[in-house]
Amino acid sequence: MSKFGEEWTRGYRDMLIEAGGRALADCNLHGEEIDALYVGTMAPGSLVGQEHIGALVADFMGLNPIPATRVEAACASGGVALRTGYLAVASGAHDCVVVGGVEKMTDTPGNEVASALGGAGDQEWELFMGATFPGIYALMARRHMLEYGTTREQMAAVAVKNHANAAKNKYAHFQNEITLDTVLKSKMVASPLTLFDCSPITDGAAAVVLMPLDKAKKYSEMPIEILASTQASDALALHSRHCMSELHATKVAVKKAFETTKLSPKDIDVVEVHDCFTIAEIMAIEDLGFCPKGQGGKFTEEGKTALNSEISVNTSGGLKGCGHPVGATGVKQAVEIAWQLRGQAEGRQVKDCEIGMTHNVGGSGATAVVHIMKRA
Amino acid sequence: MSKFGEEWTRGYRDMLIEAGGRALADCNLHGEEIDALYVGTMAPGSLVGQEHIGALVADFMGLNPIPATRVEAACASGGVALRTGYLAVASGAHDCVVVGGVEKMTDTPGNEVASALGGAGDQEWELFMGATFPGIYALMARRHMLEYGTTREQMAAVAVKNHANAAKNKYAHFQNEITLDTVLKSKMVASPLTLFDCSPITDGAAAVVLMPLDKAKKYSEMPIEILASTQASDALALHSRHCMSELHATKVAVKKAFETTKLSPKDIDVVEVHDCFTIAEIMAIEDLGFCPKGQGGKFTEEGKTALNSEISVNTSGGLKGCGHPVGATGVKQAVEIAWQLRGQAEGRQVKDCEIGMTHNVGGSGATAVVHIMKRA
Repeated sequence: MSKFGEEWTRGYRDMLIEAGGRALADCNLHGEEIDALYVGTMAPGSLVGQEHIGALVADFMGLNPIPATRVEAACASGGVALRTGYLAVASGAHDCVVVGGVEKMTDTPGNEVASALGGAGDQEWELFMGATFPGIYALMARRHMLEYGTTREQMAAVAVKNHANAAKNKYAHFQNEITLDTVLKSKMVASPLTLFDCSPITDGAAAVVLMPLDKAKKYSEMPIEILASTQASDALALHSRHCMSELHATKVAVKKAFETTKLSPKDIDVVEVHDCFTIAEIMAIEDLGFCPKGQGGKFTEEGKTALNSEISVNTSGGLKGCGHPVGATGVKQAVEIAWQLRGQAEGRQVKDCEIGMTHNVGGSGATAVVHIMKRA
Repeated sequence: MSKFGEEWTRGYRDMLIEAGGRALADCNLHGEEIDALYVGTMAPGSLVGQEHIGALVADFMGLNPIPATRVEAACASGGVALRTGYLAVASGAHDCVVVGGVEKMTDTPGNEVASALGGAGDQEWELFMGATFPGIYALMARRHMLEYGTTREQMAAVAVKNHANAAKNKYAHFQNEITLDTVLKSKMVASPLTLFDCSPITDGAAAVVLMPLDKAKKYSEMPIEILASTQASDALALHSRHCMSELHATKVAVKKAFETTKLSPKDIDVVEVHDCFTIAEIMAIEDLGFCPKGQGGKFTEEGKTALNSEISVNTSGGLKGCGHPVGATGVKQAVEIAWQLRGQAEGRQVKDCEIGMTHNVGGSGATAVVHIMKRA
């Protein structure tokens, strides 16, 4: 991955080429051995006026004339690109696929990030009426507080834990620890969510190389096997859902992933979940089955999601600490899990790390993608 | 497909639901039998502020919670979505996939269609400098004229032929015949291309259902087999190409398609090519191998691409006559070829139609997708 942050002098092509180059170097792969490229990115058209990012990156990486395809599912674009690349390898059509995720969000010409991100929800019924994403997640937070007694302190504990992890990750956007007070006393964005409940606007890219397992073993001493790759959809608009305090798509995707692998939440040693807002991580650990529904806040507050506790959640720092360049996030999650499974996570290594999971969400939950991985 | 045209009261979801409903009805398929949805669309974010079109359409078609993925490769988004859906079926992960293509281009809030389409090229090096797509294709036309002596009358003959075909297609945007004079005397857009050398701004959608062949035979009396699905990339910017009078990506994609199928151009009875501008059809029939390089203009002028001539090109009316809702085009081409192979093309039926091809291009040639199909 590239170092996540504010990259004022770099665009889509520069950042993804850096991440892609590192992925290739990691497995001693040469460009001419690559069969296809999939790029997850959400809104380059709205943000910088550039579509066709797949071909753009293939061009500047010197990969022409291989097939290059952009995949989009809002903030789940990276995870869905990973799944699309995985299916392409499974199809037999391509034996060596590079999957990249990227987003350039700061310093965009129109400064219309909130508007572009609003396109992840139902634009006609939500964004046009003024409901930006912090507002939508604030509604979910209020509902969760009402139904389960979740507190502001519990939400803030998510941000504190993720900043603590990010402080140990040299690729993270924010490498500083914060306290509960930092979150609780920061500027209100959409009640009850304050500035530090929200993931930041970040630039960055991440990339992985996918091959059939037997081939991967020839290129890498520590290949990672994808055990399950599942995806589900839900209504874009919050008002169309049957429940505001859970993400149904997450539940469907993870159920299928556990059925496929015959695993259960207790088998997972490390998970990267989609904490675009602190309440999102609380809902995610519940919906993924790491704690009972409604207990996510308490579970977090008790430190059970901290590094090397009951379940290590967002060791990268998550979207909150590591940053959230939307199209990159789903791929970055896979990179972090790969590092953890290989024992390469440096100061934030999870002990005895055998099986990992990624969970990437699009919009306010209209898309969810889950991957389960282990050391091959 | 939906009727292509100016659909001022309808958006992405409305048009694709209409096309998708027709595709399902065609094979007596029920929503609950669908495993996944792939949607090709180029620029909904720039055009109407809505991303996440995969989940949006799944939602409004009542298909939740199946995986729904948007695929983008500029004007080749539809063709690339078709290939992505095809690989998903081939992977074994999904047995029944709906592939849709859609674009809503007229009456958009910002009226920024030329700017949004510019995102298909290299925005930093082309669009920012004022090179819109008619300008880019005008450069290619001038080069083709210089190298091969191609004439304005030959280019105009493409438009006349495609309007003649479109006049027989009730789904076409333009159902009127035109003359050479109509083209030659129409308003200059970018010399040498006049208004009638350019495909129009169109709204529309198209959809197909993909299954393994044995399963397809249970649902349809006339299933179509995809014999090859190939894709290639090239530089986005015209100035980075080694040649301006051909599309290298087209040549790479079609070469692989012919190798895969052991077929040659003479085996193809009908082809839908990407005629975003008249010069593009001339280059396409050359690059695909239907006539020698440089002879496309003469070949067209002599009527060899007309309905039931040497090779029937763009029986739907092509992008010029049928219209070019960019994300829909690649899927619409597959729909037209399916109708031709089934003998359902009504007044424009190609006789003894056994094998067909589609050719979809993104931008000025940075992506090309080729499909070869036959009656199963």
